[in-house]
Amino acid sequence: MKVSHIEHLGIAVKNLEEAIPYWENVLGLKCYNIEEVADQKVRTAFFKVGQTKIELLEPTDEESTIAKFIEKRGEGIHHLAFAVEGVEDALADAESKGIRLIDKAPRGGAEGLSIAFLHPKSTLGVLTELCEDKHNKQ
Amino acid sequence: MKVSHIEHLGIAVKNLEEAIPYWENVLGLKCYNIEEVADQKVRTAFFKVGQTKIELLEPTDEESTIAKFIEKRGEGIHHLAFAVEGVEDALADAESKGIRLIDKAPRGGAEGLSIAFLHPKSTLGVLTELCEDKHNKQ
Repeated sequence: MKVSHIEHLGIAVKNLEEAIPYWENVLGLKCYNIEEVADQKVRTAFFKVGQTKIELLEPTDEESTIAKFIEKRGEGIHHLAFAVEGVEDALADAESKGIRLIDKAPRGGAEGLSIAFLHPKSTLGVLTELCEDKHNKQ
Repeated sequence: MKVSHIEHLGIAVKNLEEAIPYWENVLGLKCYNIEEVADQKVRTAFFKVGQTKIELLEPTDEESTIAKFIEKRGEGIHHLAFAVEGVEDALADAESKGIRLIDKAPRGGAEGLSIAFLHPKSTLGVLTELCEDKHNKQ
């Protein structure tokens, strides 16, 4: 697998409108997009810091993964996403090395990326996403 | 505050020798340094991915913060560190905006950085570090 950089960090928050001011006013980053990802039952707010995006994730349904994460552990960092070239090959490579996959094949994520998750039981507790921007090569 | 990029991500692991093979063999990153930070009672292993370092943190004492984190939440992402210019000014700025500081003044961290932590109660659950490399300007 060839990882080029951290594409984004996913951070679980209870409420975007309450969280965005911290990221904008204290850290001086600018929220450039808010998008609902119905599939994952979240609303996401995006910031850019260097090469990496910060994705704040607000649950839109109490049955969503993010709602359950917050209930169990509180707000905080939820997942780490790496930019890779060829997400299908990266998944096959990871699986061949004994990594348990959450997604056997890539699916559509926020901002038009092809994404897939590795299981945190195989990645030392770090919920790990692999992403590729097939429309705008990075 | 002027944040330029994510300097590193701190990830709590039980044992470096068991964790390093995942980062090297599955993700294809290279461990370029292992360093003990006696002050924080950890051994750290460093990898670089794009602009950002991954710092694996293994507790060297069961009373260390990292040992307690693992006991409570398991292995996983522990903190998020931003590169800033002027860490003293950044701390003063954060405090003036109501952010609770863990470190009122910067102290020495791994790899010769000046570092200071913001309290996760003020940062929506994300333990946040500010760092500056005063020797090699970034």
